[in-house]
Amino acid sequence: MSAKQLTDLSQLCIHTITTKPWGIEEAAKNFSDEGVKGITVWRDALVNRNIRQTGHLLRNHGLEIVSLCRGGFFPAKEKKKREAAIDDNRKAIEEAVELGAPLIVLVCGADPAQPLEDSRKQIRWGIEAIIPDAAAAGVKLAIEPLHPMYADTRSAINTLAQANDMAVQLNSSTVGVAVDVYHLWWDPMLETEIKRCGENDHLFAFHICDWNTPTTDLLLDRGLMGDGAIPVNKIRAWVEATGFNGFYEVEIFSNKYWKEDQAEFLKKIIKAYKENS
Amino acid sequence: MSAKQLTDLSQLCIHTITTKPWGIEEAAKNFSDEGVKGITVWRDALVNRNIRQTGHLLRNHGLEIVSLCRGGFFPAKEKKKREAAIDDNRKAIEEAVELGAPLIVLVCGADPAQPLEDSRKQIRWGIEAIIPDAAAAGVKLAIEPLHPMYADTRSAINTLAQANDMAVQLNSSTVGVAVDVYHLWWDPMLETEIKRCGENDHLFAFHICDWNTPTTDLLLDRGLMGDGAIPVNKIRAWVEATGFNGFYEVEIFSNKYWKEDQAEFLKKIIKAYKENS
Repeated sequence: MSAKQLTDLSQLCIHTITTKPWGIEEAAKNFSDEGVKGITVWRDALVNRNIRQTGHLLRNHGLEIVSLCRGGFFPAKEKKKREAAIDDNRKAIEEAVELGAPLIVLVCGADPAQPLEDSRKQIRWGIEAIIPDAAAAGVKLAIEPLHPMYADTRSAINTLAQANDMAVQLNSSTVGVAVDVYHLWWDPMLETEIKRCGENDHLFAFHICDWNTPTTDLLLDRGLMGDGAIPVNKIRAWVEATGFNGFYEVEIFSNKYWKEDQAEFLKKIIKAYKENS
Repeated sequence: MSAKQLTDLSQLCIHTITTKPWGIEEAAKNFSDEGVKGITVWRDALVNRNIRQTGHLLRNHGLEIVSLCRGGFFPAKEKKKREAAIDDNRKAIEEAVELGAPLIVLVCGADPAQPLEDSRKQIRWGIEAIIPDAAAAGVKLAIEPLHPMYADTRSAINTLAQANDMAVQLNSSTVGVAVDVYHLWWDPMLETEIKRCGENDHLFAFHICDWNTPTTDLLLDRGLMGDGAIPVNKIRAWVEATGFNGFYEVEIFSNKYWKEDQAEFLKKIIKAYKENS
């Protein structure tokens, strides 16, 4: 099973962090000039900006705002920190409204000072607490399972099965999941669980990049599609089989690519999108 | 559920690689002097040694040889390489016999040049090919699932569910699994799958160490029990509940600890074994 080659950029979205050396205004102009159609905004890109005006600027460049990254980080051994996290997620919902982003991606969090089971419960409670705010604001929430190598501090949700289970339990049209090939490509249950996303009508986002061999940094050594071991095209075919017709979002943290000229890097992204995605 | 504190060293085994700066003879003497009762031998520790005599030396130090590390690395896109891998596993079986090791741990392998599904099939074929040799030699084989961050090159078997499935499919009393907390601690199915090991009577080995926060190297930054996020005691309780009464094997690859005086490090291992395992 393979997906049709991508011959145009109508479904290409790029995360602001992918071209981190650019400010969001510069990213928007360059993305637009190259024909990119979607942008996912990281909250750090909005610091010292008028968020509403930034949203207008992005749309004026012809960019669809796909999501705001990121909410989450719910678990903490201390109650005060958990409450602060919920407040911060409510703030993220307000920012999404101002920006005009229909979706917030949740990097759920974990606290190595407590058992994973506790972190998992707290994630569920945290999402439950913000569902009414998100629903009232018309903003959806996507649970993003993260690679097991991030289970200590970044996310206690480490498989798509877990994310699907949690979304099903929460039983709200506001809550779905985000599938990122980097985090999930190794999982023998991936095809089955992507299918399950479709059955539950809650596949809200699809992120792509590649796994470098060797990977030299646990966080900042993601590859461009085609650089590494991930069968991006095959996973895209599974995603499309669910009926998903949203954006394919390029999310790359890479010390190597951030050192390059970002205009050149953007050309590489577009080439990799068309040839290896 | 927690396991009883370990008050003596009767079940403590240490891997030769854990104190890598020592040659195997020096490791054996030091382990023995400190009261360690088991040793798992890495094949690199046997280079330029008479293997049979080395086995005698270890036993003369009062050490039980728990296993030989490691066989496996079956998958390869090229057929010639797969055949060479099977030959090498047969050599490992001979070495285990010479050494007097009753078990070989299989790091199953992966080839990023082909789909994980192909690597998984080739692992199964590889193990099937060597079962008759292992059975004839009286050597058992333990499939060790490795952390998903090693799915590109080291192992396409990344969960205990996969290892259990494969052991059940192979349906041979020669084949079981090895549970290593480092690789599996994050998995929400871990308790269930450890129970399944017990039901199938194929839990052949139990390896311990810890996951450092932050982890600075994908391979060589393992922690001592108590250094990090892994609930070693809780997982040991699950393992003991299956009826497992073998060794608890300390397997640590650590640039940090290898730089220390190894006699001091050995004292730390024993302390961590008693207090945090």
